[in-house]
Amino acid sequence: MNRIKAAIYGVGAMNSIATRMLLDKDVEIVAAISRSKDKVGKDLGDLTGLGRQLGVIVTDDAKAALAESGADVAVIAVNSYMTDAVEQLRNCAEAGVNAVTLSEEALYPWNTSPELTAELDAIAKRTGATLTGTGHQDTYWVNIVAMMMGTAHRIDHVTGRASWNVDDYGPEVAGDQQVGKTVEQFNQWLSGAERPPTFGRNVLDALVADAGLTVKSITSTTRPDVAAEPMHSQALNLDVAAGDVIGFTDIDEIQTEEGVVFTFEMSGRVYGETDGDINDWEIKGEPDLVLSNGNVPTQITTCTQLVNRIPDVINADPGFVTMEKLPRLKYRAFGFHTYLEAGAE
Amino acid sequence: MNRIKAAIYGVGAMNSIATRMLLDKDVEIVAAISRSKDKVGKDLGDLTGLGRQLGVIVTDDAKAALAESGADVAVIAVNSYMTDAVEQLRNCAEAGVNAVTLSEEALYPWNTSPELTAELDAIAKRTGATLTGTGHQDTYWVNIVAMMMGTAHRIDHVTGRASWNVDDYGPEVAGDQQVGKTVEQFNQWLSGAERPPTFGRNVLDALVADAGLTVKSITSTTRPDVAAEPMHSQALNLDVAAGDVIGFTDIDEIQTEEGVVFTFEMSGRVYGETDGDINDWEIKGEPDLVLSNGNVPTQITTCTQLVNRIPDVINADPGFVTMEKLPRLKYRAFGFHTYLEAGAE
Repeated sequence: MNRIKAAIYGVGAMNSIATRMLLDKDVEIVAAISRSKDKVGKDLGDLTGLGRQLGVIVTDDAKAALAESGADVAVIAVNSYMTDAVEQLRNCAEAGVNAVTLSEEALYPWNTSPELTAELDAIAKRTGATLTGTGHQDTYWVNIVAMMMGTAHRIDHVTGRASWNVDDYGPEVAGDQQVGKTVEQFNQWLSGAERPPTFGRNVLDALVADAGLTVKSITSTTRPDVAAEPMHSQALNLDVAAGDVIGFTDIDEIQTEEGVVFTFEMSGRVYGETDGDINDWEIKGEPDLVLSNGNVPTQITTCTQLVNRIPDVINADPGFVTMEKLPRLKYRAFGFHTYLEAGAE
Repeated sequence: MNRIKAAIYGVGAMNSIATRMLLDKDVEIVAAISRSKDKVGKDLGDLTGLGRQLGVIVTDDAKAALAESGADVAVIAVNSYMTDAVEQLRNCAEAGVNAVTLSEEALYPWNTSPELTAELDAIAKRTGATLTGTGHQDTYWVNIVAMMMGTAHRIDHVTGRASWNVDDYGPEVAGDQQVGKTVEQFNQWLSGAERPPTFGRNVLDALVADAGLTVKSITSTTRPDVAAEPMHSQALNLDVAAGDVIGFTDIDEIQTEEGVVFTFEMSGRVYGETDGDINDWEIKGEPDLVLSNGNVPTQITTCTQLVNRIPDVINADPGFVTMEKLPRLKYRAFGFHTYLEAGAE
């Protein structure tokens, strides 16, 4: 097998980590795409802190880069919601380039953005590309939970609690999380009609669908997380006054026709010095089961899954293939091209 | 799809739980097999504490029961090691009946009993049956660990610690765990040539194989777990004096050519009142990762996986198919026959 060729799509904090990881796994970087005027024309190695140049110059012409670079896969780390993410995913699908993306809604967008997802699925099937949303939530919020569910005889209630540090994901995500707003501004934003779907909703949709259950009702409540003392957001380089917003917690709940209830509390906020990410799940039923990943390093496990999923995505059938349909993720000790099935690409 | 027909093979503590679970999932019990003179001729419902008769009379003629009952799958809970388990698995394979077994070595017997496994694999491929070892270790010691490994960029060392209560698994297993022996008797037994392979070895073999790594060296050490005060083994109905053996801990370690080290400490002993099963795993590398399942109810998760794997095993290609090759386990909310793929059986 030849080495896999990858296009870096979005040159920020997450794809800087991903670039190093891809190189470690013998992936050839053949293009880098950014909208940022500060980055266009510069070498990807310089921008991602590798300490050496890669001979890959950042461009803002995504369509040309995808069409001409010979990329097997695009590694997208640009935004969070499908209304934004559709641009990058459509560019990849139309160019027939497989794509993995960190856009959180893309994890399982079939219910929250059905038209966009169906459109992308159709283009990808026509051109032979596979599009998949992954990241920390792939294993820790869906697949490892679904696997533990498989060890139950009867499930009454599945409850998850997770948190992540807004400062790990750059200014775009921190802005989405309303960091620095007053509570009044937060409540105004929350009551508006334009609120995007919660990421927890996508996680629960995936768990319900994977178990073959039927949604009866969905509730979603959101509370602001507020600074108890003055804090600083690194991602925004912004001081947040006590009483102002450092993020929020979504509490999503799905009741199913079969009686199984799913609840997920997902908190994305600026951390104080003693905070750490958690991933705690509990199943009530026969038997009761629990899972904890201690202080899980969400930022790194987001990047590792973004890159470790690449062989699965290239091997998969064309279309928008959500991560619960991919094989169980495996450790990749060797160059990624060694994990490709014959004829995959 | 028609309902799945199952033969209960071994009528003891574990298959009593499994029988109830199978009935809950719309599986039809068509045969029950036991070597015990106390059980032959009695109704399976009476023997398994269901509070009602099933119209299934226990027989000791395994070959006739498998050949004549029309069973799609046999649910085997008889013994632990392949030298013993080969009898039941061979009977199933020769009758063309799929089988799931709790025999611990059968989880991944390719390295510890290669000839027996190859023989069973060949028979099963000829008759169209699938044979799979499962139980608690399927998810909690292999597949959930392998999945977490998939979220690492680099792994230096994987360490697991697990324990289980000998009294949960009946007298045969308690005898294998040397319960009630003196330390001197234990050490004599340990130094003898006839010691069977450790179950931890099978677990680590599965993890190494799943990651595509190559074994460089294997070490296995065993220490007796000793009663600090007088204890009672329910499984053996035996009082154990202080200073005598209540089980043992195997510490298995595999070094790989790729530099990844795997260590597993697995303790099977009689519990005191405050003990509980644990399942704690740690990955050292980039990043460091941990997993804990609190006080996991090993006995129940053994039975749930034995039964929940049935649709996967019927769907799988013929042969001895070890559990890391099966699809990620799923919660089975509905009758098991609804999870069969067209043409599977």
